[in-house]
Amino acid sequence: MRRAALAAGAFAGLAACSPAAQVAAPAPTPAPAPANPPAGMQYLYGSGEAAALSVQVWQALAAYVSDRVKARPANSVVLADGASLATPSFAPCGTKPYAAIFDVDETVVLNIGFEFHDARTGRGWNAADWDAWEKTGEGAVAAVPGAAEGVARLRGMGVTVIFNTNRAVANAEATARAIRAAGLGEAVHGETLYLAGDDGQGNRKDGRRATIAAKYCVLAQGGDQLGDFSDLFNATGQSVPARRALTVGTPVSTLWGRGWFVLPNPVYGTALRGGFDDVFPMDKRWDLPADGGKN
Amino acid sequence: MRRAALAAGAFAGLAACSPAAQVAAPAPTPAPAPANPPAGMQYLYGSGEAAALSVQVWQALAAYVSDRVKARPANSVVLADGASLATPSFAPCGTKPYAAIFDVDETVVLNIGFEFHDARTGRGWNAADWDAWEKTGEGAVAAVPGAAEGVARLRGMGVTVIFNTNRAVANAEATARAIRAAGLGEAVHGETLYLAGDDGQGNRKDGRRATIAAKYCVLAQGGDQLGDFSDLFNATGQSVPARRALTVGTPVSTLWGRGWFVLPNPVYGTALRGGFDDVFPMDKRWDLPADGGKN
Repeated sequence: MRRAALAAGAFAGLAACSPAAQVAAPAPTPAPAPANPPAGMQYLYGSGEAAALSVQVWQALAAYVSDRVKARPANSVVLADGASLATPSFAPCGTKPYAAIFDVDETVVLNIGFEFHDARTGRGWNAADWDAWEKTGEGAVAAVPGAAEGVARLRGMGVTVIFNTNRAVANAEATARAIRAAGLGEAVHGETLYLAGDDGQGNRKDGRRATIAAKYCVLAQGGDQLGDFSDLFNATGQSVPARRALTVGTPVSTLWGRGWFVLPNPVYGTALRGGFDDVFPMDKRWDLPADGGKN
Repeated sequence: MRRAALAAGAFAGLAACSPAAQVAAPAPTPAPAPANPPAGMQYLYGSGEAAALSVQVWQALAAYVSDRVKARPANSVVLADGASLATPSFAPCGTKPYAAIFDVDETVVLNIGFEFHDARTGRGWNAADWDAWEKTGEGAVAAVPGAAEGVARLRGMGVTVIFNTNRAVANAEATARAIRAAGLGEAVHGETLYLAGDDGQGNRKDGRRATIAAKYCVLAQGGDQLGDFSDLFNATGQSVPARRALTVGTPVSTLWGRGWFVLPNPVYGTALRGGFDDVFPMDKRWDLPADGGKN
């Protein structure tokens, strides 16, 4: 995902570095460079655990799609217009050709260069730097482990790979170059690449998904954010625990790993929210026993 | 996993709070409670993204095992004695009954109560508090999303579920109670529960895996750390990028999602290591272009 609407990270308090702001005020003083990258970046960009997990998702996805193409399903894995998470229904497949829909950032592409800049300079995420990254970052991306092999396998099965990202429509060509540079093949705006600004719905992706599902039988969706599957997960005013509860033991939770495939991202986005009362249920708290647990 | 050998977190510099240390020195002054839990805890314990990802792993695992029990495989997914990651070979199945092996902490059980204590008090991880948690934490754990349903499905297929954890053998009964309290059923020490101290190999799990594979045809392994699959991932002196490279495009990487199943854990463990040069390859760095990317 792209983070324009979600800059809730540690540096969100820094002034946005737009040209106008640079004229009106001194540039923000960067924090001193930390000794190590944040834990989330160590995990996602550095660890064998996250690499293995990403390969796992892509291998499971390709195996799932391989099974699905053997017998045409009745429905796409895109929710139908008017469906809810409680009573899901899905866009019909008819005789449409097969496709799979993927977010770009931290789903097929690792934004290694930008996150280095973010962490090392202490500037953090800001809209101006991210826009420059979209325009010029193609040399400093890598494929998510397993993604290049995964999309190649899908194409080999006759499944059209479509990218649905919240990168800006103004940067469509540069984003296609970044996708190509990561070894993920060609993306053509309006055909296999959809971006924020393609319609009047901003960062919401349901409209673009409906456009795609009108033309294709969508066998799989992949993303690192719940909004990569349905905007319904991001209802305004919803608490952190209520949002989590939508994903477990519900009518849509059967889709995880069976049509909807989540990639790990503890670096940024809608997952990094919540205070202690949101994250730790009151009935699951613990403190040292008075005897230190010696009994 | 249990973290005795891996306490490389933000609070690792605090004195260990053993009884001896408490006598010899004043108790460490806890840091002030932070406003929010660390990002990794927000992700793992609070987000819909991590819950969905965990459900996905467990659903994919159960589907994979369901396929495997239909035709007896020749080999377990436990590496044979003397195998390497470059030239893997596997323990034979013969006519042995089916089993699956799982780590406990952050694989089948979320240690919500302990992590609350860790983050809220600023005491962080230390061996004494963790030992007390093993002994008394059973009321403040939860199942990893999808794990209770997953292990129940495996048992329904006739697959014995075996837990192989680095919790201490001295706390075997309490760990069995925690597993039961999380809704994961019964674990019997020496039969379906193996712990650190069962053999002379400390936190290394290969010996315990070999003991299990001598009695069972192991169809799947699950864990949040690479050491939950093979100790060979944790060779001494290995760099962070070299360790990551073992997991992608190698002879064992085909196992991710097909026998070996990784659960997300950006909170603690072997994944949270590395400086900037470990995490960000030199050829994937980026900084703002001189013109701010306007071209």
